[in-house]
Amino acid sequence: MHSGEVLILILIIISTSSAISPDIHNHHHIYLPTNLEALQLDRSDSLFCDSWRLSVETNNAGEWRSVPPMCIDYVGNYMGASGQYSSDCAVVALDAAAASRALRVPADDGMDAWVFDIDETLLSNLPYYAAHGFGSDAFDDKSFDEWAELAECPAIPASLRLYQEVQRLGFELILLTGRYESQRNATIKNLLAVGYHGWDRLILRGPSDIGKTALVYKSEKRMQLEEQGYRIHGSCGDQWSDLFGYPMATRSFKMPNPMYYIA
Amino acid sequence: MHSGEVLILILIIISTSSAISPDIHNHHHIYLPTNLEALQLDRSDSLFCDSWRLSVETNNAGEWRSVPPMCIDYVGNYMGASGQYSSDCAVVALDAAAASRALRVPADDGMDAWVFDIDETLLSNLPYYAAHGFGSDAFDDKSFDEWAELAECPAIPASLRLYQEVQRLGFELILLTGRYESQRNATIKNLLAVGYHGWDRLILRGPSDIGKTALVYKSEKRMQLEEQGYRIHGSCGDQWSDLFGYPMATRSFKMPNPMYYIA
Repeated sequence: MHSGEVLILILIIISTSSAISPDIHNHHHIYLPTNLEALQLDRSDSLFCDSWRLSVETNNAGEWRSVPPMCIDYVGNYMGASGQYSSDCAVVALDAAAASRALRVPADDGMDAWVFDIDETLLSNLPYYAAHGFGSDAFDDKSFDEWAELAECPAIPASLRLYQEVQRLGFELILLTGRYESQRNATIKNLLAVGYHGWDRLILRGPSDIGKTALVYKSEKRMQLEEQGYRIHGSCGDQWSDLFGYPMATRSFKMPNPMYYIA
Repeated sequence: MHSGEVLILILIIISTSSAISPDIHNHHHIYLPTNLEALQLDRSDSLFCDSWRLSVETNNAGEWRSVPPMCIDYVGNYMGASGQYSSDCAVVALDAAAASRALRVPADDGMDAWVFDIDETLLSNLPYYAAHGFGSDAFDDKSFDEWAELAECPAIPASLRLYQEVQRLGFELILLTGRYESQRNATIKNLLAVGYHGWDRLILRGPSDIGKTALVYKSEKRMQLEEQGYRIHGSCGDQWSDLFGYPMATRSFKMPNPMYYIA
């Protein structure tokens, strides 16, 4: 059975069954009914996993918890051997570089800004996630924080070139991350080690930001930046919660990330 | 040369060249420098075209005019033989159906609404575009209008099921299209012929809407609907200009469309 047929079948089940799985009602962010495996979907089916990834990247999927089991190998291949993730990041950088040029020369007052997220935007945690199921394992704060403390994240090469290009054009670089103030030293050490220099501001979660969603925290920080006079021309992040909210940048750029979701 | 290397090379050129193509400065929505072909990119390279399509679907590409020449065959295969477009549409419908269920039972006042775009959302113009280069030919108003007047667009099967499911749940269905009032009869004839029935409102561009961008026109119409008391829970469209603007629906669903862009 082709995945197209499986999907149509699922849709028919969703559309017509009165005995629908409770998961569908209570957790629409759980992407598929748990009885999907009973439909004997071919686990190697990249057609479905491509569609799933698109649903994540367009924010159609809304909140989602983990990579669907049948797509774990697909995500591993996407992030690595296929070269697709690298290509996708390179094209985001092309888009953003073109936009930064179109905005012409910034004013001389030092208030023309670009905002960059850090994890999966400037720095890559792929070595960590490759060892933890590419987003299929439940997220473990403790082991991830230990990884971040090592300050060994590689740069995403296309992002480093974009960062340098935006900097060369005269924009102020503002790094806005969900990492905590306690991680400031490790984060600075990591950024410098892989080639990021000369940012204007590095904003991390302080004590008053704990417990806020990324969407709220990052929107508040952008608002404070605008109140201080910054004009936020561009924003790059791998999560929609890096980009959406009020205020938004003039142009927002969604970096790819099919491994995890942050609200 | 792999496309990854080509992209890095392009990025290096963009990043360092002072003799950059004027296209980059003046038309950042023209996706690639016109001298790309001089780089002898393999036209069959699906890695780049996959990345290009993602840039379109995430709105990273911003305004764009036509499918890049090296991706015309890719887009044709995506829309047809590969089955990927059908699969992608089916997953959008799954996402939206799950969201409509999560919103539970609408109130009894008949004001809980879902908004659907028509072209490439409920109805498919694929037969037309397949005969016109899959979005690589310049858009021709006259021949497209002749096609629309035939009222022979097929339904997108997954969208028809979604429409029926949202209807079954008790939501009001509002069709909001960039088509003109002069096309009302053909549009109704086409919708009914392929199975769409029982919509609450069919909103087309009237005389006062001519010349407005889709973003402005559709936002104004959503505002008027809210002023009339409608609660817009969901919105489905193949263009970001169907979804963005103020007010937005509670949940927005981006249908795939790598063939054309509407501002």
